[in-house]
Amino acid sequence: MKLTTPHLLGIKDLTKEDIELLLSTAKQFKEVLQRPVKKVPSLRDITIVNLFFENSTRTRMSFELAEKRLGADSLNFTSSASSVAKGETLLDTVNNILSMKVDMVVLRHSASGAPHFLAKHIPAAIVNAGDGINEHPTQALLDAFSMLEKKETLEGLKVAIIGDIMHSRVALSNIYLLNKMGAEVMVAGPPTLIPKHIVEAFGIRVTYNVNEALQWCDVANVLRIQLERQNQPLFSSLREYNLAYGIKRSMLEKLNKEIVIMHPGPINRGVELDSDVADGPHSIILNQVENGVAVRMAALYLLSPRTP
Amino acid sequence: MKLTTPHLLGIKDLTKEDIELLLSTAKQFKEVLQRPVKKVPSLRDITIVNLFFENSTRTRMSFELAEKRLGADSLNFTSSASSVAKGETLLDTVNNILSMKVDMVVLRHSASGAPHFLAKHIPAAIVNAGDGINEHPTQALLDAFSMLEKKETLEGLKVAIIGDIMHSRVALSNIYLLNKMGAEVMVAGPPTLIPKHIVEAFGIRVTYNVNEALQWCDVANVLRIQLERQNQPLFSSLREYNLAYGIKRSMLEKLNKEIVIMHPGPINRGVELDSDVADGPHSIILNQVENGVAVRMAALYLLSPRTP
Amino acid sequence: MKLTTPHLLGIKDLTKEDIELLLSTAKQFKEVLQRPVKKVPSLRDITIVNLFFENSTRTRMSFELAEKRLGADSLNFTSSASSVAKGETLLDTVNNILSMKVDMVVLRHSASGAPHFLAKHIPAAIVNAGDGINEHPTQALLDAFSMLEKKETLEGLKVAIIGDIMHSRVALSNIYLLNKMGAEVMVAGPPTLIPKHIVEAFGIRVTYNVNEALQWCDVANVLRIQLERQNQPLFSSLREYNLAYGIKRSMLEKLNKEIVIMHPGPINRGVELDSDVADGPHSIILNQVENGVAVRMAALYLLSPRTP
Repeated sequence: MKLTTPHLLGIKDLTKEDIELLLSTAKQFKEVLQRPVKKVPSLRDITIVNLFFENSTRTRMSFELAEKRLGADSLNFTSSASSVAKGETLLDTVNNILSMKVDMVVLRHSASGAPHFLAKHIPAAIVNAGDGINEHPTQALLDAFSMLEKKETLEGLKVAIIGDIMHSRVALSNIYLLNKMGAEVMVAGPPTLIPKHIVEAFGIRVTYNVNEALQWCDVANVLRIQLERQNQPLFSSLREYNLAYGIKRSMLEKLNKEIVIMHPGPINRGVELDSDVADGPHSIILNQVENGVAVRMAALYLLSPRTP
Repeated sequence: MKLTTPHLLGIKDLTKEDIELLLSTAKQFKEVLQRPVKKVPSLRDITIVNLFFENSTRTRMSFELAEKRLGADSLNFTSSASSVAKGETLLDTVNNILSMKVDMVVLRHSASGAPHFLAKHIPAAIVNAGDGINEHPTQALLDAFSMLEKKETLEGLKVAIIGDIMHSRVALSNIYLLNKMGAEVMVAGPPTLIPKHIVEAFGIRVTYNVNEALQWCDVANVLRIQLERQNQPLFSSLREYNLAYGIKRSMLEKLNKEIVIMHPGPINRGVELDSDVADGPHSIILNQVENGVAVRMAALYLLSPRTP
Repeated sequence: MKLTTPHLLGIKDLTKEDIELLLSTAKQFKEVLQRPVKKVPSLRDITIVNLFFENSTRTRMSFELAEKRLGADSLNFTSSASSVAKGETLLDTVNNILSMKVDMVVLRHSASGAPHFLAKHIPAAIVNAGDGINEHPTQALLDAFSMLEKKETLEGLKVAIIGDIMHSRVALSNIYLLNKMGAEVMVAGPPTLIPKHIVEAFGIRVTYNVNEALQWCDVANVLRIQLERQNQPLFSSLREYNLAYGIKRSMLEKLNKEIVIMHPGPINRGVELDSDVADGPHSIILNQVENGVAVRMAALYLLSPRTP
């Protein structure tokens, strides 16, 4: 069984069946990762390049581990040690790498749309590992996978996404996925960080009050506040953000229900999430990281030229 | 069969038979790279260190892939993450690495002669991946290999090398190789970038008119203009260089013959080569990149302590 | 047989029997490294992350090679290409990596005590690859291993450690190890670089005269002078240090005995050690580097969750 698309550029391009196939394949790979020998040779003799034009610990390592677990050969490329410094275009860089008989490309780039541009010009399968403020599809898939370990179905699930929605590719990919899978979404955060056009396009609930979001939801996906992405800082201090929008343990204790707390990492402890929430019983943050490897194995496997 | 030299320091040190052996071995490896399983275990249990003291995308990746395809273990070393920052000498760095039972060294260094110096002091085979403005032998070999995919023989072949000859290790290695193999060479470029002593030593044709070079040649090897290597910039702008020495499609159309266009990359599009030439039917630039892996496999294989 | 500790944080925590087990295991691995096929599959399907928050050539490569020789999968992490730049805590970084099913952690960190802190909070085995000015246990083990290739026993062996004792994790780990194994230790160096509390705690001999130390010892372990670690430079020039404390060939020739010269590298030639000493017949500096791989194989093997 194959995806309806030759690349994983964004959740936007996937059908509901694509998402279900990715999640069920990831489930099988997660079982492999629980065994003493955490490997399957599905991509043996497939060569994959990890092209990271932005820094990343967990995403690059997660892809690299997914590749190793599948028996693929990995090549790492980071912009600092590259011809990009010599002014080569992205397309030339990738075409050169592909000429060396590389089969698949994992791309992280600061420019929104970079993987979509590449996909029009190269024959190899591309997995988007985050493009600017557009999409981060494997993150949304691992978020969905992690929710489904706690909840029976995404259909009708109430998910609050909290923080800087405007600049977050995690938020956008989650909104696409949850929308396609029939979940209900509410976004919460500072008014200036809620993108009106997305809210309207998806008919999403909006609140500027975090407690209201927590009261409503089954799952709270708390975003990292990325001050470096904001052209004009909106808060005089991180402490001010914490006071207005940070999730504290007392807030969870006041709810008359159990909700699930998620975060894509890296966490700003004491800013968007207090430590006793991040490390508390509601949090599935490290499960998300674990599931990331299985989800990336599924994406690489399903897009591989080897897969029937 | 073995090379007459224990290292690949430069084309200067190779016999015609060495070059033929390298090219015929590369041809066999290129066939391996066309198969679904692109590997041979010829260097299994050989450990190779890639010592890159200068940035490089394609060359480092090409060597790394060549090593993987041969089943070798690779170690990567870049100067930024190294003891070199602590003031250690090149020889100490390499001796330390070799003490760890590393079998072969691939070296890129900004100092001309660095691999030749090392070769006098260490027992392991060294492959020069580019030293200052001296040589880049695997580039010349892959260039020759690529020409031979288009032309029956190098004997009598007319090759124009166009651009900054003075500062180009690609030019020098190509001149050595083409001279040994009986090709005719013309260099073309700005008068100040043509090194008089080399032109005289090899009895090479010289022109300052690019159209004359194109009219004369069968193959044009267009060099990257490396403004960073010039102590005094010779052009007020890259646009000025393009007007005087850049290759444009109209220039190729005016010729009453088909010539082959080569470039070692990375390309400055719109400077030394217009995009419709780089991507046009005359260009074999991506073939060069592909052949680079096969040529590097041949060099590593022939110099390996394992090879009989 | 297992160590009495689940981590290798420092020599301080090891028993004499632990040290003997590490050294005898390293001896077996050194034999493996002399064979044409320098590998054993003892850690096949174990994944190890090399977390280096400080630059290092030899230590990182030595660990990486040890891992390859044991058949483990390695992941490399350096602080420059990481979430640490985004302000994530060390514990979060490591917990995230471990969630991806990484089995063991090799850690180098500029903060003394960083691996000990981690050990309290994570389930995986940690090997300290150097923490601040505290310990560098695998260096002390490879030093001991190298001494035992020249001398029958450490019991009663006279070892002089020369240089900046105060800021050296190599010195401290060596002092712990030599003390536990019954060797006699003398430290020599500038008075301001001799830590009084350590000298007193271990009842170590002290001299400010390098010739006296050489006269007394069987083995001289000469430390790198690390001016970058000193808050206030103590010498107006490296030349001044060389005149007062550097080891010169003439000094060795005046002794009426053969002593062994060691250095943890990288060497400042002409500062703490003249080149004819570093490269002379007394020196076992490159043996130390070679033995480092065997010792690190032993440490990783003995701490692996796979080892019975």
